[in-house]
Amino acid sequence: MTRLVVDIGGTNTRAALAEGPRIVEDSVRRYRNDGFAGLSAVLMRYLAEAGSPQIDGACAALAGPVQAGRGRLTNLDWLIDEAEIARVTGADRVRLLNDLQAQGHALDQLAPVALVPVLDGPRAVGGVRLVIGLGTGVNVTVVHRTGTGTLVTANEAGHVSLPVACEEDLSLARFAAGEDGFAAVEDVLAGRGLATLHDWVTSRTGPPQRIEGSEIIAAAPDDPAAEQTLRTYTRMLGRVAGDLALHHLPYGGIYLIGGVARAMTPHLARLGLDDSFRAKGRFSRLMESFAIATITDDFAALRGCAAHLAETA
Amino acid sequence: MTRLVVDIGGTNTRAALAEGPRIVEDSVRRYRNDGFAGLSAVLMRYLAEAGSPQIDGACAALAGPVQAGRGRLTNLDWLIDEAEIARVTGADRVRLLNDLQAQGHALDQLAPVALVPVLDGPRAVGGVRLVIGLGTGVNVTVVHRTGTGTLVTANEAGHVSLPVACEEDLSLARFAAGEDGFAAVEDVLAGRGLATLHDWVTSRTGPPQRIEGSEIIAAAPDDPAAEQTLRTYTRMLGRVAGDLALHHLPYGGIYLIGGVARAMTPHLARLGLDDSFRAKGRFSRLMESFAIATITDDFAALRGCAAHLAETA
Repeated sequence: MTRLVVDIGGTNTRAALAEGPRIVEDSVRRYRNDGFAGLSAVLMRYLAEAGSPQIDGACAALAGPVQAGRGRLTNLDWLIDEAEIARVTGADRVRLLNDLQAQGHALDQLAPVALVPVLDGPRAVGGVRLVIGLGTGVNVTVVHRTGTGTLVTANEAGHVSLPVACEEDLSLARFAAGEDGFAAVEDVLAGRGLATLHDWVTSRTGPPQRIEGSEIIAAAPDDPAAEQTLRTYTRMLGRVAGDLALHHLPYGGIYLIGGVARAMTPHLARLGLDDSFRAKGRFSRLMESFAIATITDDFAALRGCAAHLAETA
Repeated sequence: MTRLVVDIGGTNTRAALAEGPRIVEDSVRRYRNDGFAGLSAVLMRYLAEAGSPQIDGACAALAGPVQAGRGRLTNLDWLIDEAEIARVTGADRVRLLNDLQAQGHALDQLAPVALVPVLDGPRAVGGVRLVIGLGTGVNVTVVHRTGTGTLVTANEAGHVSLPVACEEDLSLARFAAGEDGFAAVEDVLAGRGLATLHDWVTSRTGPPQRIEGSEIIAAAPDDPAAEQTLRTYTRMLGRVAGDLALHHLPYGGIYLIGGVARAMTPHLARLGLDDSFRAKGRFSRLMESFAIATITDDFAALRGCAAHLAETA
């Protein structure tokens, strides 16, 4: 019962073997996508290097939308297809997931050390869990336990209205909005949102200083504009995560993933995430029911693929 | 296989018999709660009037929160308890649901005539469905089909941030907010929200005119302040429903229920619900995927109880 699990990112693809719901830790290998013509070439290389094991199930996670067993890696124009994965690997059963869904399926497989606490709170076994991806975009998935398995739902929560509670927020929303005048959560909380926030902060006292998100994070807390940028990001993240918590009641915990989440995590407590997360009027007490942690496991999507195969096989 | 289904509202309780997933239409009876000491007395009366049928399953829907098989009707201090219902009816299996969950379970049992179209769109069989209750409060439930049944989720979506997109919205949010300064969706879209909106509209040109929601709806479109109140309600409803659609992707349809929803339904098209529902920037096209209809079936909660019993029995 050896299975193949694959995590196809924009730049690299990781592959591993899995047994039951767990990946074989020392079987993980990483390949740069630009050295290959497509996913099949990567899989053939991996299987050859792994000694050509017999594969009876395969699951791949893709950084992009998946429909009816197919998806596309847009920057390289790779078409990813369950049928093609079955042909190359010889697996009877193949599943293709969106990478965020895979992260949702991974939650039971994470080691405690892979979770950095952000906000303390209880985590009820069997409770709904919420995964918030903060990276190139903002993506959310909700993980329900049902009588028979795990339901990982899809949504476009990164594109809902940016919450606005004061004149300053409204000024920011106007600055961040596209030509259509609509300001979405993603316009501020995705990676590019940090640069937008910094532009907005600096434009209030002079010409906007256009610098990248990673530079802004590195410059805080010493640089006042960078610190103000991170403070505003934290306030908006708290408010958005708080609304998401009321939309889904994640008594099983809230999990942040992605490059921006990891980079911001050391700053969130200093900048008052708890206050903005819990500022929900008479529902502020309820907000203490929800714990937040950041996932730092690079293999989480691979683990989610293994768990999903074990559950559906 | 006769089952008992019950819908316990704040003023009246309805009871009916059910066979399989359907209620026996001519078995529905309604009782005023204030004529009884508690639910058990209502059920004993109903069963006696129905000829003392043998009941092998019972399901009750309650207008209030339900936890661990128990709930409370707050205005009459009735304690509702699955064990007590089992004792009075003799049923082996008893389920107590929140009334909104029951409405979620009812969707497959509604006759087409019980749905008033609000916004056209496709309704995918098997797609997620969203129920938005607009009445004394604002309540939302999400109905997922899983491999083995129906998952009806809980949330507190009436208490998320009121979406604000312009100076006028911000002025309204400040007016509607409680002492804590937090303006929630429910502060504007619940029944009392109509009165708040009317106060806000009239206070901008003179002393606020305090009138009830039903009077405001009756006065539109001829009375300018009433019409402006309904127009603002419609704009906020569209924006809130649009955000909810992005949070849950209800390709199976959006369903409005409750007294305010029914009263507002004839006005929503005239007042531009479609525009505010679909104003989501580059996601505006996606918003055409979601149909909205208002449920006008008084027996919907009873039907949901029957469907839930049939599915779980």
